[in-house]
Amino acid sequence: MRQLRGAEVSAKIKEQVQAGLAELTGLPPKLAIVRVGDKPDDLSYERGAKKKLESFGLRVQSYAYPEKIGDADFFRAFCELNADPEVTGILLLLPLPSRIRMDRIRERIDPDKDMDGISPVNLAKVFAGDPDGFAPCTAEAVVDILKENGILLAGQRVTVVGRSMVVGRPLSMLLLKENATVTICHTRTRDLEKVCREADILVACAGQKRMIDRTYVKDQAIVVDVGIHVDESGTLCGDVAYEDICETASMATPVPGGVGSVTTAVLAKHLLQAAQRAQRRKEMQ
Amino acid sequence: MRQLRGAEVSAKIKEQVQAGLAELTGLPPKLAIVRVGDKPDDLSYERGAKKKLESFGLRVQSYAYPEKIGDADFFRAFCELNADPEVTGILLLLPLPSRIRMDRIRERIDPDKDMDGISPVNLAKVFAGDPDGFAPCTAEAVVDILKENGILLAGQRVTVVGRSMVVGRPLSMLLLKENATVTICHTRTRDLEKVCREADILVACAGQKRMIDRTYVKDQAIVVDVGIHVDESGTLCGDVAYEDICETASMATPVPGGVGSVTTAVLAKHLLQAAQRAQRRKEMQ
Repeated sequence: MRQLRGAEVSAKIKEQVQAGLAELTGLPPKLAIVRVGDKPDDLSYERGAKKKLESFGLRVQSYAYPEKIGDADFFRAFCELNADPEVTGILLLLPLPSRIRMDRIRERIDPDKDMDGISPVNLAKVFAGDPDGFAPCTAEAVVDILKENGILLAGQRVTVVGRSMVVGRPLSMLLLKENATVTICHTRTRDLEKVCREADILVACAGQKRMIDRTYVKDQAIVVDVGIHVDESGTLCGDVAYEDICETASMATPVPGGVGSVTTAVLAKHLLQAAQRAQRRKEMQ
Repeated sequence: MRQLRGAEVSAKIKEQVQAGLAELTGLPPKLAIVRVGDKPDDLSYERGAKKKLESFGLRVQSYAYPEKIGDADFFRAFCELNADPEVTGILLLLPLPSRIRMDRIRERIDPDKDMDGISPVNLAKVFAGDPDGFAPCTAEAVVDILKENGILLAGQRVTVVGRSMVVGRPLSMLLLKENATVTICHTRTRDLEKVCREADILVACAGQKRMIDRTYVKDQAIVVDVGIHVDESGTLCGDVAYEDICETASMATPVPGGVGSVTTAVLAKHLLQAAQRAQRRKEMQ
């Protein structure tokens, strides 16, 4: 079985981003990472993203707010950075505390700065297959891993296990745009193994530790694992029982080292695209 | 085979709408039908919708503009009726002439008046499975026909043939909300017959005259036909070769008399919902 490693795809995206950056004038694009509180997961993600984006030649600035910040205060601060012409793109570390009304944040975020596709405008574009919309980075990372590895999507049967708004649903629409025949499965799907075995390409984004074993995988199918969990022994693992599917699948992404490492590269790509659009708008004025 | 007739579903929706209207204060809700030019199809649809909505106890007013109207003039007129508190809901007869920029109309239409789900806000809600979003009426009509006939959707395999933004895509999301396992097919799907034969419920919205014959239908499957065409002999027909599937399917919608007759009832339901929301907003002030 061939391992689909994220690092190689990330390196290709890095080359594309750097080529694009060379054509831009002024300071490098800047990502604002918006964080409320100091959750260890958020801090660790933030450090990783900062390091990677800076290695691509991009700027990253943290906007951290106290855990106890009120809805009105947060909204005011958010609107200010949203309007700041120095900020090229925005990434919110989610979920925010429940007292903060996410609805109006989603509606307010400038769609041109919305790097992880949370605004209605971008989601509607992803839904419609409009390439101008920013898709959630993880969903796009799955498509990039497949395409950058030369895997044909048009006419292929792809089964997506999971229907979240960060992966399953937007990914299904991105796959549809690539002319795949898409089946969306979830917790209420009957005979899930059988439905999964129809797939030429199986994407696991169910959020269930090692749930996809070889009984779900057609012989020679391609398996993409979006899950990321820590198991009982403290080891990172995905939604796929990787060792178990090795003999059945023709290719699969590992965890760690698969989709996760491409997600930040997609974030960098979005930041470049946002900067390119901002520059075009400026030139047209 | 049992025929799933739209008239019965439409009658049920009429009862619900009339019960809702009885609780409203003031004049009955008013639908603005916006038309550019005098295309016979538009005029015929407009007459039918007006007659049906008035029979439900609703008001309908046509806003007709000359075929040659400029983009700026149309936009100005549209913004005015969009802001008119007397207008409860808006239906645009599409497509408009290409000189009219639909993008800014979609972005401008008040999501609370957007009866056929064309605004990004409503599409994003439909995408996310948020019941507050207005879905395109035809897509919702398909779900209503199935549900009002007591057909179980949760856990069922539903195949949707067609991926348009007026039916296929939003319908897939509505079916997902009902916990169906959804497969989306299109012109690039390989071995379409086989994929369709996996379906417990098959929805044809491909826009191809009588393309779905019995080779696409699993024994005892339920078939919903969204297509509407006029054949060589001047007879109305759908995407399904109805006579051919009769012995195979357990239930199917006819054309005419199926989905089409429910679509306007869904439009009436949306208009009631818009009026209910407007009243709640008024009461909260």
